[in-house]
Amino acid sequence: MRVEFRLSGSGGQGLLLAGIVLAEAAIEDGKNAIQTQSYGPEARGGSSKAEVIISDEDIDYPKATDPDYLLALTDDAYRTYGPLMKKGVIITDTSVKLDPNINAKTIALPILQTAEEVIGKKVVANIVALGALAGVSGIVSEKALKQSVLSRVPKGTGELNMNALKAGLELAKNS
Amino acid sequence: MRVEFRLSGSGGQGLLLAGIVLAEAAIEDGKNAIQTQSYGPEARGGSSKAEVIISDEDIDYPKATDPDYLLALTDDAYRTYGPLMKKGVIITDTSVKLDPNINAKTIALPILQTAEEVIGKKVVANIVALGALAGVSGIVSEKALKQSVLSRVPKGTGELNMNALKAGLELAKNS
Repeated sequence: MRVEFRLSGSGGQGLLLAGIVLAEAAIEDGKNAIQTQSYGPEARGGSSKAEVIISDEDIDYPKATDPDYLLALTDDAYRTYGPLMKKGVIITDTSVKLDPNINAKTIALPILQTAEEVIGKKVVANIVALGALAGVSGIVSEKALKQSVLSRVPKGTGELNMNALKAGLELAKNS
Repeated sequence: MRVEFRLSGSGGQGLLLAGIVLAEAAIEDGKNAIQTQSYGPEARGGSSKAEVIISDEDIDYPKATDPDYLLALTDDAYRTYGPLMKKGVIITDTSVKLDPNINAKTIALPILQTAEEVIGKKVVANIVALGALAGVSGIVSEKALKQSVLSRVPKGTGELNMNALKAGLELAKNS
């Protein structure tokens, strides 16, 4: 079992933190995980990409070669990484304009809107997205996810982030 | 130019953040960078390892294969990763017991003590270590480092972390 995640969006969306939390939740569950963030010229343009590999075995190659799950929160991210999806599932924000030439199974969820309007804080979009990704993939346990989120978010924001995580898991359930 | 860093220590020392800041400072300077954190059974034992590759060119293989710089803040980290240093420089905390069988050039600096006694906060040891690593390697500019630290540390801790960074850079200068 080796599952590859690619989390993509814009620079301020906190996807690195989402990737770290996902990797640490997998460890809590007794699996192996590796989390990578690449920067390059595109990072200066404001885009962001984090990857997480989760496996029962040792992980030899730490980069996603053929992602099972792509999270794309912006048009740019979707247009850049969507066409690379040979198998697996794309999870986009509903604000992303879908391209009929991208053939992978795609689930559009109101992630940004949920963060902003239901939870009331745009900055928790990454944790809503994490919940959605975890819910759709079913790779990590809810218990480990909660623990991992609480250990990484700033003091005093635990409840806010728990609500964001639950909202993300709900989005996945209803999809 | 490809420079490989491995940052190792115990789980609570914040070395992942130090790695992220180092990678982002390199981007600020117009270079490419990739930051990786591996977790595995050893992570559950409380140890921590982050890696950063900085290059002028595209980075094909994202893991350190032959590190130029190893930071080892604990005995465990030193004993695990020290023997793998074929070239390059090991930077340890002065509390680490050195092993004469590990032949790489080694610089022992009072990183943990500086954080605790000079700055007065044990938790900034990672930023002191970052300053030391940056100072010894000379790979990133001080300006980019400062900017990158300020963008990643919690609100209200900017001055504390700037002092920690400066103290780390000073340790490197005097070494």
